[in-house]
Amino acid sequence: MTRRVALLLEYDGTDFIGWQRQAMGVSVQSVLEHAAGKLMDGPPRACVAAGRTDSGVHATGQVAHVDLPCHLALATIRNALNYHMKPHAVAVLEAADVASNWSARFSATGRAYRYVIHTRKARLVLARDRAWHVDHALDVAAMRAAAAMLQGHHDFTSFRASSCQAKSPVRTLDRLDVEQQGPEIAIIAEARSFLHHQVRNMVGTLKLVGEGKWSAARVGEALAARHRKAGGPTAPPDGLYLTGVRYEPDPFTGGTAER
Amino acid sequence: MTRRVALLLEYDGTDFIGWQRQAMGVSVQSVLEHAAGKLMDGPPRACVAAGRTDSGVHATGQVAHVDLPCHLALATIRNALNYHMKPHAVAVLEAADVASNWSARFSATGRAYRYVIHTRKARLVLARDRAWHVDHALDVAAMRAAAAMLQGHHDFTSFRASSCQAKSPVRTLDRLDVEQQGPEIAIIAEARSFLHHQVRNMVGTLKLVGEGKWSAARVGEALAARHRKAGGPTAPPDGLYLTGVRYEPDPFTGGTAER
Repeated sequence: MTRRVALLLEYDGTDFIGWQRQAMGVSVQSVLEHAAGKLMDGPPRACVAAGRTDSGVHATGQVAHVDLPCHLALATIRNALNYHMKPHAVAVLEAADVASNWSARFSATGRAYRYVIHTRKARLVLARDRAWHVDHALDVAAMRAAAAMLQGHHDFTSFRASSCQAKSPVRTLDRLDVEQQGPEIAIIAEARSFLHHQVRNMVGTLKLVGEGKWSAARVGEALAARHRKAGGPTAPPDGLYLTGVRYEPDPFTGGTAER
Repeated sequence: MTRRVALLLEYDGTDFIGWQRQAMGVSVQSVLEHAAGKLMDGPPRACVAAGRTDSGVHATGQVAHVDLPCHLALATIRNALNYHMKPHAVAVLEAADVASNWSARFSATGRAYRYVIHTRKARLVLARDRAWHVDHALDVAAMRAAAAMLQGHHDFTSFRASSCQAKSPVRTLDRLDVEQQGPEIAIIAEARSFLHHQVRNMVGTLKLVGEGKWSAARVGEALAARHRKAGGPTAPPDGLYLTGVRYEPDPFTGGTAER
């Protein structure tokens, strides 16, 4: 007898080829699936995640699900998965029981990302691989005005990877805030779901606005053009964090292993 | 002709044997001195720091000084030092001209440290090597009450390394605050100067209080005992950051290379 378990995950994307299992390279998915198999002394067990993050992209709140034997306690599952995933830079923060038809991917009603830009002359040390290093100041007020053009229900063709396989390019961007704290600029994006590279393409465009190379109006025109070439460049993965996935109800409040 | 230059430094202490040059291993000092020598195509040039941090201890605001040729611009000094210090996890954030008798160590009138404890069941991923991992909750209110016993002008013999070579064990601890944000607890310590291991020994003791193993009163008794064995254990270096050094006036405000 197995039951479905939801897992709240943190990882440093630097040394992974991304979430998704691939023929070559170490993925978060392959490390987790291998560890889940070890719990049953068996082969890797399929895991499904809310967001298939790219290589170099980090997570503080990724969610995945896996089917595991009923007799294992949630705390044991979390601790054993963390043991078996060592020394890879990924950890299970919480485990929770969910219904057998619950899906980390399809049951999700929202995703939240945070993109961190660090502006200073000197190369990054403590934030190395964890932020986009921009060696000059950016106009945050201008970036905010441009971000406002992107919020709402739009066809985001200009901001999705040309390889994006989503059927529709239309998404509702619920939030795109630009926050500044000293040399650090954080861009917070929330939506039910995102297109491939959408956050990084929006951030790459907002950076041009922060540099005064693009006006906020041009961002609106790029959006209206509905053509990838009209959008700005893709920001590097280093600054991107999947910070949370929303479910109604949240599987991690009540009945979970103590965090 | 040379002039004296003050350097504001950031480093990740994980892969260093500490600030101080030693026969074996890579120190922050040796990397910086080697880079300073390269600016003049010569041998390493002596650098003096405000605080000789231990192996594994980080800095966001260490200050050092070095004597360099007059013809080099401050921005050139910063950029060239950063170039020559690659790929080591240390960077010069700012360079500033100071008087020839100014000393990063002896002119300092205050040092500030931050110690980060991360409390959660799962091992640390993004904060790995950057915080002390404690796998259970701590009573922050109790830690605050105990911290208050340590503030002020005291003989800190119970909290200094037995190898500490300072002539006097008396110090004035101007600030010892305990702040909490979610699973992260930060202990902020400020004083004109600290004894060897003083911050880590105070933090190791406050953790016992947070666990309910020691009362605040016992911390007061430990202080009064003036014996290292009366104090608590030494917290690991991973969570400690030298965040700032105070000078009057501050060499990095006005007349410095743009950060």
